[in-house]
Amino acid sequence: MSKNADADINQAALEYHEYPVPGKISVELTKPTDSPRDLALAYTPGVAEPVRRIAENPDDAYRYTAKGNLVAVITDGTAVLGLGNTGALAGKPVMEGKGVLFKHFAGIDVFDIEVDAASPTEFIDTVVRIAPTFGGINLEDIAAPHCFEIEQALMDRLDIPVFHDDQHGTAIIISAGLLNALEIQGKTLEDARIVVLGAGAAGIAAVRLLCNMGAHRNNILVLDRQGVIHTGRENLNPFKFSVAADTDRRTLAEAMHGADVFIGVSGPDLVSAEMLASMADNPIVFALSNPVPEIRPEVANQVRDDLIMATGRSDYPNQVNNVLGFPFIFRGALDVRACCINEAMQIAAVHALKKLTHEPVPDKVLAAYGLDQLESGPHYILPKPLDARLREAIPPAVARAAVETGVAQAPWPEHYPPMDSL
Amino acid sequence: MSKNADADINQAALEYHEYPVPGKISVELTKPTDSPRDLALAYTPGVAEPVRRIAENPDDAYRYTAKGNLVAVITDGTAVLGLGNTGALAGKPVMEGKGVLFKHFAGIDVFDIEVDAASPTEFIDTVVRIAPTFGGINLEDIAAPHCFEIEQALMDRLDIPVFHDDQHGTAIIISAGLLNALEIQGKTLEDARIVVLGAGAAGIAAVRLLCNMGAHRNNILVLDRQGVIHTGRENLNPFKFSVAADTDRRTLAEAMHGADVFIGVSGPDLVSAEMLASMADNPIVFALSNPVPEIRPEVANQVRDDLIMATGRSDYPNQVNNVLGFPFIFRGALDVRACCINEAMQIAAVHALKKLTHEPVPDKVLAAYGLDQLESGPHYILPKPLDARLREAIPPAVARAAVETGVAQAPWPEHYPPMDSL
Repeated sequence: MSKNADADINQAALEYHEYPVPGKISVELTKPTDSPRDLALAYTPGVAEPVRRIAENPDDAYRYTAKGNLVAVITDGTAVLGLGNTGALAGKPVMEGKGVLFKHFAGIDVFDIEVDAASPTEFIDTVVRIAPTFGGINLEDIAAPHCFEIEQALMDRLDIPVFHDDQHGTAIIISAGLLNALEIQGKTLEDARIVVLGAGAAGIAAVRLLCNMGAHRNNILVLDRQGVIHTGRENLNPFKFSVAADTDRRTLAEAMHGADVFIGVSGPDLVSAEMLASMADNPIVFALSNPVPEIRPEVANQVRDDLIMATGRSDYPNQVNNVLGFPFIFRGALDVRACCINEAMQIAAVHALKKLTHEPVPDKVLAAYGLDQLESGPHYILPKPLDARLREAIPPAVARAAVETGVAQAPWPEHYPPMDSL
Repeated sequence: MSKNADADINQAALEYHEYPVPGKISVELTKPTDSPRDLALAYTPGVAEPVRRIAENPDDAYRYTAKGNLVAVITDGTAVLGLGNTGALAGKPVMEGKGVLFKHFAGIDVFDIEVDAASPTEFIDTVVRIAPTFGGINLEDIAAPHCFEIEQALMDRLDIPVFHDDQHGTAIIISAGLLNALEIQGKTLEDARIVVLGAGAAGIAAVRLLCNMGAHRNNILVLDRQGVIHTGRENLNPFKFSVAADTDRRTLAEAMHGADVFIGVSGPDLVSAEMLASMADNPIVFALSNPVPEIRPEVANQVRDDLIMATGRSDYPNQVNNVLGFPFIFRGALDVRACCINEAMQIAAVHALKKLTHEPVPDKVLAAYGLDQLESGPHYILPKPLDARLREAIPPAVARAAVETGVAQAPWPEHYPPMDSL
C-alpha cells in the first residue's frame, strides 16, 4: 500500500475507534428491566433459584445464563498482529475487533480478556480459573512456540472448546483453498510437494492439518529464519522437531525447486522470481504475509501463467481470511455444546468451505464486492467473507462432526437442517 | 414471604432467565460493520494503529477501546447471596444480574467473571492478570474474612478502582440511612451507642466507615455467632480483632440494653421483643437480614412506637439496597478515571444520598411505587432505587471527592455540573 493510503486508513481507524464512544463493544440487556418486578427477577430475590439449580446441576448454566453463547477471546499480547510483543493492554483493540467479527458473522457474544502473564504457566492457570464464565475459549495473538503448549494444556484441563485461531483457523482456510487449487491444477494432496515458509503458529498447524488430511510428511519442507528445518539441526524445539524433514536441501531456493505448492506465513518479499520459476508446472502459491506478501501477485503473474495464487489481502482474488472459519466453527461447536473442537470438526469445516466454493454465488454477494461473476476456478478457490451462506453451511457441518465423534453434549438444534440431509 | 409467593417468584425467575434466550446479557457492537471498509477499520488492517498508540501510551486504551466504561463483576463463588459456597459457576446468575443493575442504572458495561480459585492468592493473582481488560473491578459474594485481604491486595496492586460492594456498598447505604435516622431521633453519630450483629464483610465495613465518619469505637459493640467480640476473646482474626471492644457485655441481650442503634447483618429472627424493649428511647433498628429480618417490622412496631426501622426488603419502608450506591459510585469514579474508590469518595456518596432524601420527591418516582407522597422522616430515610435523580446527584459528588483527594486522572466531565456548584 502507498504511504498515503496507510495514513488515510490509520487516521480513519483512530476516529472509528474513538467516536462517538471509545471502543467497539458494549454490554446490553436481553431481558426487561422496566419494573420493580423485572428487577426482582433479574437480581434478588429472583436470582436465587437459578443459582440453586446450577449448584445442583452445572449444565443448567446453559439454561439460565449467557454462558452457552459466550466466547472469551484471550491474549497475552505476545504476538499482536505483526507488531510483536506489545503487551496485553495494547492487544485490546484487536481482541475487541475479533469479538466484533464473532458477533457480526455468527451472533456469538465475546468478552475480550487481556492477560498480563509472566509465563505460559501463569497464563494457563489464569484461563483455567476464569473458564467457568465461558462456553468457549478463542486464543489469540500468542507467540509460538508457547502457543502450542498453552493450547494443549488448556484442552487437557477444560471441558469447553479451546481454539487457537492463529493456528487452526488459518490452517483450515489454507487447507480449503489448497484442496480447491490442487483440484484445478490436476494434483492431489497425497502427491503434492509442499514448501511451508514460516514455522510459527500458522505454519506448524497447517502442516499438521494437511498431514491429517492425507499429505505425506516426506513431501513437506518447512523453513524458519535459519532455512529448512531438517532432522540434522540442533536445538529444535519439539514443535519444530515434529515437522523436521530428512533432506539435503537447506535454503528456500533449494526447497522451492520442483515444488507444487508454496505456503508462506512469514514476511514480505521473501520469494524471488527465480524461485517461483523453478517450481513444478501448474504451481500453487499462497503468499499470506500481510500486508506485503512473500511475492506480489503482479510479479508472480509476470513470471508464470500456469499459477494459482492466494494472498492474505482483500484487494486480490483468493483471500485467505480467518473470518471464513472461526465464527462458524464456534457457532457449530456451541450449538451442539461440543466439549472441544477436534480434528474431525476442523476437517469438516475444510470440506464445507471447499464445497461452498463450487456452488453458484448469489447476486447479493457479487454486489457486495462489485463483481459481475464469480465461478469456481483459479481466481475463486475460497468463499468471500461477506457471503451469508457461510453461516448456513459451516456450522451444521462442524456440528455433525462433533456428534459423529461423540463430543456433542446437546441435542441437534431445531433450526439446523436434519443431520442426515447434510 | 409465604411458600406460595416463594414458589411463584422462583418459577417466574427461572422463566425470566431461560426465555427467549438464556441469561440476561449480550455483547453488542457500537460501531458500523456493514461494509468491507467498516470491517477493515474494526479489524485488520485498521486496528493496527490503535494498537501502536496504546503500546506507546497505555492511557490511549481509554480513547480507543471500551476499557474506560467496563467493569468486571468478579466472584469466587464462596458467599453467593445467602446460599454460601456454591462454587464459581453457580454464582453466574448473580454476577450477570449485578451487571444488569450497573447497566440499567448507570450505563456501565459489565463482564461478569466467575473465578474457580482454590485460595485467596490464586484469586488475587487471577484478577491482577486480567485487570488490563477493565476500567474497574467490583468484587462480589466473596466470603469473609478472605474478602478483606483479597480487596486490600488488589487495591495495592492495581491502579484502577477496586470495590467490594458487599463491604463498602452496604456500609455506605447503611451510613446514609443512619445519619438521617439519627437526625430525626435527635441523636448524633458521635454519641450514639451502636450494636452491630454480624461480623462478616458488611458488618466490619460498616463499623469502619461509621468510625471514619465520627462514631466512637468505644460506643460500638460487634457480635458474631459466639457473642460480643471483646478484647478478651482468643483466636480472633485480625479483622474481628480490629472491632473488638473492651467490655463486660457478652450476649446480644446485654449489648442491646440501652443501645441507640441496632444494625443487623446476620440472620432471621435473632432479635427478640424483649431486646428491642430494652433499647434506649427513640431507637434505630436496621434489621437487614434478607428475606427474613432480625426482627420483623410488624413485631417491632407493636413493641415500641418511638422507633425508626429499616430492612433489606422492598416491601417495607426504608429499604437498605446496595443499588442506591454501586452503580453511581463507579459512574463517578470512571467519569474522572479515578485510580481507586477511597474513603473520601465513599463518604461523599453517603452525604449525597443523605442530601437527596431531603429534597422533594418527583411525581414520577411516587408513581413508580404507587405512593401519594414521600417526605423526609421516619419512613423515608433513604432514596428509592427507581429515583432517576440518583444518577444526577451521586456520581458528581463522588467524582468531586476523587478530584479533591488527587486520585482523578481525567478532566472534569463536560456533562457534569461545574465542580464548585456542587
